[in-house]
Amino acid sequence: LRLSRIGEYGFHRLVLGLVEGSGCIVGPGDDAGCLPLNNGFVLLNIDGYDVSRAMLPWNTWYDVGWKAAVASMSDLVAKNARPLGLMASMGFRPDDDGMIVLEAVRGVRDAARRHGALLLGGDTNSSEARWIDVAAVGYSRRPVPRRGARPGDIVAVSGSFGLTGAGFHAYREGVDLGEWPGIREATSRPSLPLWLLDYGERMNECIHAAIDVSDGLAVSLHLLAEASGVRIVLEDVPIHQEARLYAEKYGLDPLQLALYGGEEYEVVVVIDEACSPPSKTHAVGRVEEGGGVYMGSKPIEKGGWDQFLSSQRE
Amino acid sequence: LRLSRIGEYGFHRLVLGLVEGSGCIVGPGDDAGCLPLNNGFVLLNIDGYDVSRAMLPWNTWYDVGWKAAVASMSDLVAKNARPLGLMASMGFRPDDDGMIVLEAVRGVRDAARRHGALLLGGDTNSSEARWIDVAAVGYSRRPVPRRGARPGDIVAVSGSFGLTGAGFHAYREGVDLGEWPGIREATSRPSLPLWLLDYGERMNECIHAAIDVSDGLAVSLHLLAEASGVRIVLEDVPIHQEARLYAEKYGLDPLQLALYGGEEYEVVVVIDEACSPPSKTHAVGRVEEGGGVYMGSKPIEKGGWDQFLSSQRE
Repeated sequence: LRLSRIGEYGFHRLVLGLVEGSGCIVGPGDDAGCLPLNNGFVLLNIDGYDVSRAMLPWNTWYDVGWKAAVASMSDLVAKNARPLGLMASMGFRPDDDGMIVLEAVRGVRDAARRHGALLLGGDTNSSEARWIDVAAVGYSRRPVPRRGARPGDIVAVSGSFGLTGAGFHAYREGVDLGEWPGIREATSRPSLPLWLLDYGERMNECIHAAIDVSDGLAVSLHLLAEASGVRIVLEDVPIHQEARLYAEKYGLDPLQLALYGGEEYEVVVVIDEACSPPSKTHAVGRVEEGGGVYMGSKPIEKGGWDQFLSSQRE
Repeated sequence: LRLSRIGEYGFHRLVLGLVEGSGCIVGPGDDAGCLPLNNGFVLLNIDGYDVSRAMLPWNTWYDVGWKAAVASMSDLVAKNARPLGLMASMGFRPDDDGMIVLEAVRGVRDAARRHGALLLGGDTNSSEARWIDVAAVGYSRRPVPRRGARPGDIVAVSGSFGLTGAGFHAYREGVDLGEWPGIREATSRPSLPLWLLDYGERMNECIHAAIDVSDGLAVSLHLLAEASGVRIVLEDVPIHQEARLYAEKYGLDPLQLALYGGEEYEVVVVIDEACSPPSKTHAVGRVEEGGGVYMGSKPIEKGGWDQFLSSQRE
């Protein structure tokens, strides 16, 4: 039962039997942990990575910390929770320069600040590998689960896609990002759609379901559809203009970049058909009865980044 | 500025400038992160390790998960916060057997349950090294800081010491633990003094300061004394009977085992002299004006486990 054979999602299914619910609508297997507390909910998340597998050649150590913090807060924002505090745990080699660790911590701190949260502390560990994990805690009066999408609902997304997919292509092919500042930014210091939380507070009966898209848009839509027991039919996916230009220059399909990029910290929100989606979102499709994800009548494959299987990034 | 030269505590002093306070009495540099929320406080902690550096020959993968969970919850309990929820992030090699990962997750889940908390979820990462980080969130109506000890206060501890120090000696010397079940238990599946929380709720004006002793009793007493600007004078340290027997058999100083063991998940509580310490604690000394830690008139050195310096365990 090698991890490389069962893959990350297969393994998660095994682990799910060990995870416990707390009476919160955001339950086991959802984006973040959730606990009822004083008429509201505390949400907890942890996210991290082995630096050698995730640091891109143009990333600084500051970016390494920044991205780990954003990845951890992303799941909170997707659940309609405001990030409040972060703590980081890192592994470094004893002969590493303390300055690179400080840069990473500074990246975590600044990403926290940018999103209204505080870096509260952390832990450093002597290790053969370099890794970083960021724990994030947030608060929500009404968390939004993955399950909850109903036929007729509107599917909307918080931004446009394709920049990170282009970035991973650039990494594989050794493309210089000098003329692609958007791609560089998206893969170095992404930021989160915190403005969704205002809608979530004012109009929270309107949001039926949500998921963060850090594993890629296609897989995230599939996970939401599976959790809700519905089909998602896309009409269109907003693709970032720079990703479109990049795809054109390198002969790539821009829709593939948009669907299978990963590490794109946007949110999919599923809105009651009687409501208007948040004004800054893009409506991309509808919920129907059935299963799976379609672009019109064409099925969209689930494929995405898997930690333990070979993936499109390698 | 190699980590191996500045050491873990030296590095922490550098990082402290980046950590932010939130108006909670448990502030930057204390055992855990703390955030005011709804007339109370949410406490957050993260703790982890590189498995290759911390797994003892007699530890199972279940123990690896259990110990990481206990280490993370320990700082919450020391701050008078009840652990509520945990999330784990782990690095494993793609060719690792998924069963060892599941065993580690089961250890985290069971340690959470034993201490009244829920395992809410987690994250797995492909890595060259194997590591585990556990984030723990808890709640307190009145968190207890490191700083706060005043001259005249009583210093008490939640248990007896020496078993883990003996365990690290046994590891170095290849001693078989067959006849030392207490040492084996303390270094495999330690548990936390949750009963302190009842005292903390009923008598919370009586607790002036507290610290967890996971880095060793001597260093923890020093950190508390430094944070409070006081001297701690010990009269006695409770040493576990089995640690005493072990020390006798192998010609070791039992007090050294008790002071410099580490990974002993007890709590030091500093109690107002007008109060009775919690009935299950042992009073070990007094707070005086000045600085440092003494046994009678003899100074106790700070030495303890440091992630990046050579330490007594290696």
